[in-house]
Amino acid sequence: MLYLIGLGLGDAKDITVKGLEVVRRCSRVYLEAYTSVLTVGQEALEEFYGRKLILADREEVEQEADNILKDADISDVAFLVVGDPFGATTHSDLVLRATKLGIPHRVIHNASIMNAVGCCGLQLYKFGETVSIVFWTDTWRPESFFDKVKKNRQNGMHTLCLLDIKVKEQSLENLIKGRKIYEPPRYMSVNQAAQQLLEIVQNQRIRGEEPAITEETLCVGLARVGADDQKIAAGTLQQMCTVDLGEPLHSLIITGGSIHPMEMEMLSLFSIPENSSESQSINGL
Amino acid sequence: MLYLIGLGLGDAKDITVKGLEVVRRCSRVYLEAYTSVLTVGQEALEEFYGRKLILADREEVEQEADNILKDADISDVAFLVVGDPFGATTHSDLVLRATKLGIPHRVIHNASIMNAVGCCGLQLYKFGETVSIVFWTDTWRPESFFDKVKKNRQNGMHTLCLLDIKVKEQSLENLIKGRKIYEPPRYMSVNQAAQQLLEIVQNQRIRGEEPAITEETLCVGLARVGADDQKIAAGTLQQMCTVDLGEPLHSLIITGGSIHPMEMEMLSLFSIPENSSESQSINGL
Repeated sequence: MLYLIGLGLGDAKDITVKGLEVVRRCSRVYLEAYTSVLTVGQEALEEFYGRKLILADREEVEQEADNILKDADISDVAFLVVGDPFGATTHSDLVLRATKLGIPHRVIHNASIMNAVGCCGLQLYKFGETVSIVFWTDTWRPESFFDKVKKNRQNGMHTLCLLDIKVKEQSLENLIKGRKIYEPPRYMSVNQAAQQLLEIVQNQRIRGEEPAITEETLCVGLARVGADDQKIAAGTLQQMCTVDLGEPLHSLIITGGSIHPMEMEMLSLFSIPENSSESQSINGL
Repeated sequence: MLYLIGLGLGDAKDITVKGLEVVRRCSRVYLEAYTSVLTVGQEALEEFYGRKLILADREEVEQEADNILKDADISDVAFLVVGDPFGATTHSDLVLRATKLGIPHRVIHNASIMNAVGCCGLQLYKFGETVSIVFWTDTWRPESFFDKVKKNRQNGMHTLCLLDIKVKEQSLENLIKGRKIYEPPRYMSVNQAAQQLLEIVQNQRIRGEEPAITEETLCVGLARVGADDQKIAAGTLQQMCTVDLGEPLHSLIITGGSIHPMEMEMLSLFSIPENSSESQSINGL
């Protein structure tokens, strides 16, 4: 049996009791290590689970899935995913490959950022299409996701923006020279995402288009959702450029146009204080 | 401290390790019992948690929230919710009331139907606004949610339909006579939801409108997601009227117009067999 087990969002203890029991009795346990991270590392997980974990990066899961699935028809193999196995990233490819090999699978669900963002008080059923914001480079500055934000706002829907994660990246030099030396991991902050968004707004104005959002659009920045030290800040897109949310992972919500009074009351709990570097709080909106 | 703790979707062991630790040390533990149910009852939870649970129905949570929050400033109180505390139903009112009383709160997240539906292979980020389908009566047959399905499909988005739950309902007679006698709980099945949807489609045709969906629209029925005996069936809306998914809870997905090949491949794992009472399988779509 292939078990796809969600680890939730905070630390080692966010696994479910059911998930932990399975982890402890599987013959091999893989940890998917490229779409998200917990606030604790592999060692903390290994200590709490009492099991050695085999780190699986994107390359391995995509190219060496057969290794992961080896003997899973006669023994139990666990594949651990931060959040939920079918959350932000689906692991459909692994499931389909298992099915073709006649290996049954089971999913042990957990919280993912896709549902845990509800903790800021915005109603989950009012979220439209989720978008991803990637790190821009000097030569690659995609803006196409912005159309989805626009469509969501036109329909009064909030937009969850998942922010880029770069792990196991090689510098151009190391890549060319075939050296398997990797850069330190990078996680996009709410500040960086907001700055890129504002640049798109400026570009649209230069082109004479009416941008779907402005500096004053109400946004919510979230960091380390589900962890003891999670931080949520509600304020304008402009404020999101400077608000300090600390360590990764960060996510950003661009609110839809119409906000229910109960949603607004909840957001006011996370309003950026008046005396911070930015002067406008959501209470003034 | 007020702890809002998600129980996940299956049985007693779907609570997280962190959640279980908190439950075991809180001075009072409430179980919210009106928006969803697990596949096991209160007694099974009490036995596994090793704690007595206080059942909180909608009336109590709304009208007697102060009882729930009593002394939560000097002791720990847990409020357990099937799924995630901010999933399908938000518990913002309780959080806001706690905040006004100076009581801090913490959320311990878990899977909710809002993210666990990803297990059918449809990509979560492509879901539009979630709708609720309620039991029709002879005199109350709301169709307004159908506009949201239409809007989602126009934007190529899937629609998750949450199906009605009736607990602690009084018959008209008992209500009038003030007798606190309650009807057995009712949970809408995928069959019932599909039949109501088809009736709306017929009504729209009679009025000369172009319905957003037809008998042939690809849908996914899900039952007891996260439980050992979960069932998923992919097929036409017509097939959803007769497919047997067994015990509650059920949910229904109306797919968006455009389906990614990987999504389709996953759905084919759950395709209703050709030799069932309905002749068309999704392979033929």
